[in-house]
Amino acid sequence: MPQPELRTADVQNGETAATIGALATPALLLDQDRLDRNLARLCSRVTARGVVLRPHMKTAKSIDVARRAYPSGPGPITVSTLAEAEYFAQYGFRDMTYAVGLAPHTAERAMRLRTAGVDLKVLLDSPEQAIMLGAAGRTARATPSALIEIDCDGHRGGLTAADPKLVIVAATLAEAGVKLAGVLTHAGESYSLCSPDALIAAAENERAHAVAAAEVLRAAGHECPVVSVGSTPTAHFAEDLTDVTEMRAGVYMFFDLVMHGVGVCTTDDIAISVLATVIGAKPEKGWILVDAGWMALSRDRGTAMQRVDQGYGLVCSLSGKVYPDLIVAQASQEHGILAMRSESAHALPDLSIGAKVRILPNHACATASQHELYNVVSARGDAIEARWPRMRGW
Amino acid sequence: MPQPELRTADVQNGETAATIGALATPALLLDQDRLDRNLARLCSRVTARGVVLRPHMKTAKSIDVARRAYPSGPGPITVSTLAEAEYFAQYGFRDMTYAVGLAPHTAERAMRLRTAGVDLKVLLDSPEQAIMLGAAGRTARATPSALIEIDCDGHRGGLTAADPKLVIVAATLAEAGVKLAGVLTHAGESYSLCSPDALIAAAENERAHAVAAAEVLRAAGHECPVVSVGSTPTAHFAEDLTDVTEMRAGVYMFFDLVMHGVGVCTTDDIAISVLATVIGAKPEKGWILVDAGWMALSRDRGTAMQRVDQGYGLVCSLSGKVYPDLIVAQASQEHGILAMRSESAHALPDLSIGAKVRILPNHACATASQHELYNVVSARGDAIEARWPRMRGW
Repeated sequence: MPQPELRTADVQNGETAATIGALATPALLLDQDRLDRNLARLCSRVTARGVVLRPHMKTAKSIDVARRAYPSGPGPITVSTLAEAEYFAQYGFRDMTYAVGLAPHTAERAMRLRTAGVDLKVLLDSPEQAIMLGAAGRTARATPSALIEIDCDGHRGGLTAADPKLVIVAATLAEAGVKLAGVLTHAGESYSLCSPDALIAAAENERAHAVAAAEVLRAAGHECPVVSVGSTPTAHFAEDLTDVTEMRAGVYMFFDLVMHGVGVCTTDDIAISVLATVIGAKPEKGWILVDAGWMALSRDRGTAMQRVDQGYGLVCSLSGKVYPDLIVAQASQEHGILAMRSESAHALPDLSIGAKVRILPNHACATASQHELYNVVSARGDAIEARWPRMRGW
Repeated sequence: MPQPELRTADVQNGETAATIGALATPALLLDQDRLDRNLARLCSRVTARGVVLRPHMKTAKSIDVARRAYPSGPGPITVSTLAEAEYFAQYGFRDMTYAVGLAPHTAERAMRLRTAGVDLKVLLDSPEQAIMLGAAGRTARATPSALIEIDCDGHRGGLTAADPKLVIVAATLAEAGVKLAGVLTHAGESYSLCSPDALIAAAENERAHAVAAAEVLRAAGHECPVVSVGSTPTAHFAEDLTDVTEMRAGVYMFFDLVMHGVGVCTTDDIAISVLATVIGAKPEKGWILVDAGWMALSRDRGTAMQRVDQGYGLVCSLSGKVYPDLIVAQASQEHGILAMRSESAHALPDLSIGAKVRILPNHACATASQHELYNVVSARGDAIEARWPRMRGW
């Protein structure tokens, strides 16, 4: 039988600590000033171009973060799982796009949300899915709503504007009694770019493919009200959004070292970090050992293919100042090995056992998903101002 | 305000499905026949050599799995976090080793478990940690127990037998009122090997370093009852365990593709897999898209450096038969792209939308940690026989 008295509140990570220094480690920190700045930056950029921003909640997975994006009440969001859709629906969100291709079980589950009053749009790119969704709609006695996925850069799924299947899918949707909400594309290849010119071109390519697909559908007699594009890099570099109706992005809320390598943010924009404690050293190897391994940082090595490889993360002081060239060079499950980049002119900082550091993540979506909650901090001091839980699962 | 009625039990992943085919995907499967076989294999190998097996719970993080390892009641275990120690203590486990280097906050927290009757041994390799642990013991009015970490292969932390610091740490422990439980080492470099001879040599190297360190300590007048070694590869290849008292291993319970690449198991021994559903295809690229991306599989690419790169996982049929050369070639957050290895002579299997597959993981510890629970299955049929929750956090 469980003996709950062995597990007391004060030993739970982050449940009672009042300051960053008092947190048990590893722990996830979220700087709300940076979060608010990142949210405002993209929102004003996109709305200034007459386009709706539909934030992707796959990165934050938190109602508290969603409320920072929408302080005056729920607005349009994108979700990556139906568990996310159900979670945000509980808090009053009603306009959602589920941006992962449809399967039979997700069609049925999506229809339950629609009959509960959620305008959930699903994604597909085949006649089989259109027929399946129509059947789920008839079973639920409700009209499904679907976006057709458009392939703009060969990254994943979707159809091109030139593919004859595009109008076949639209016709199948109409026959199956499904409302065609519009088209959706994602410039997934933009994550591998690193120059402003290439990013501007990727954004224009994304726009052009989506708009061309919408025109093909309209020419075939289908209404196609939504033209949805987006990725964090293209959202920040798109110059022309003519005929686009909405922009999706998720990682922009937190940013990360991959986005820094792409050229979308500075390290001072990165809103999440992992707090870690020094637990050992190997001076003869130039190593400092910390208690944040891949379980706290994730296995993501997204910067490995970039010009600057950040290892498993870039190390900052407790107050958030970057130690130049100090990275998490290796990670096992609960150990991180800090070391200077081989070419560095800087000396290894003096960090003794018990000292704390913050580690900036390669990939915010992956690192945040390793944690139960955000310890919310600000630039104003070292207080834990709030604890925001994350949801997970499918 | 949350509206819980939008989240019904029957849409929760794995909470009600009676068969594998009825599970929402992605979902984690655990084959309990394979689990039991893996547990029995290592237990009989180690106990036949007169050594205690101290299973590492960092992979499974589940009381139900621990009970399969110890069907007649709690025995010795290894843990990777104090949250694991507190979790297993709730279920009656009393003999534990926390195999991550000590920090001030973990020293205090470990002492709370000791005063609650748990024989928790902690790990350190410096006089600073010894002094810190002694202080935590005095505050808690209890005697701490520590293992000195020994470095056998330069993988991470620890001292060698030849390091003069070894007896200094032992003397500092004695002065600080800490009981020296013994020495502990881990052949972390064994994961990069792939021949039986190299694995046998790594196991002997691990044994020799630990035993030599214990002899140095005993010669200096310190009792050193425990000589603890272990990693899944060396545990399965050690031929001589003379003077070793205990063996630690964790991933052996489930095995994975990295262990298959090292040569410790066959793919038929791998006890966990991720169930996924086909959500699209790109025939012109030879791609099949599934709804298991890195969120379900983890970002671990541990086979990338092995002779056979398994991508993000090796694909099996719903019944568990490997599709030769079909791997998860790419993964984004909720999408996996299945493709044949480039050199394959086999054809892409015919998997249409809605079809289900099982994906064997690169690294069991990382993949299992992405999931809330194990859907327990057996070789006898497609029933979900149990649902075993996992713990997480620090």
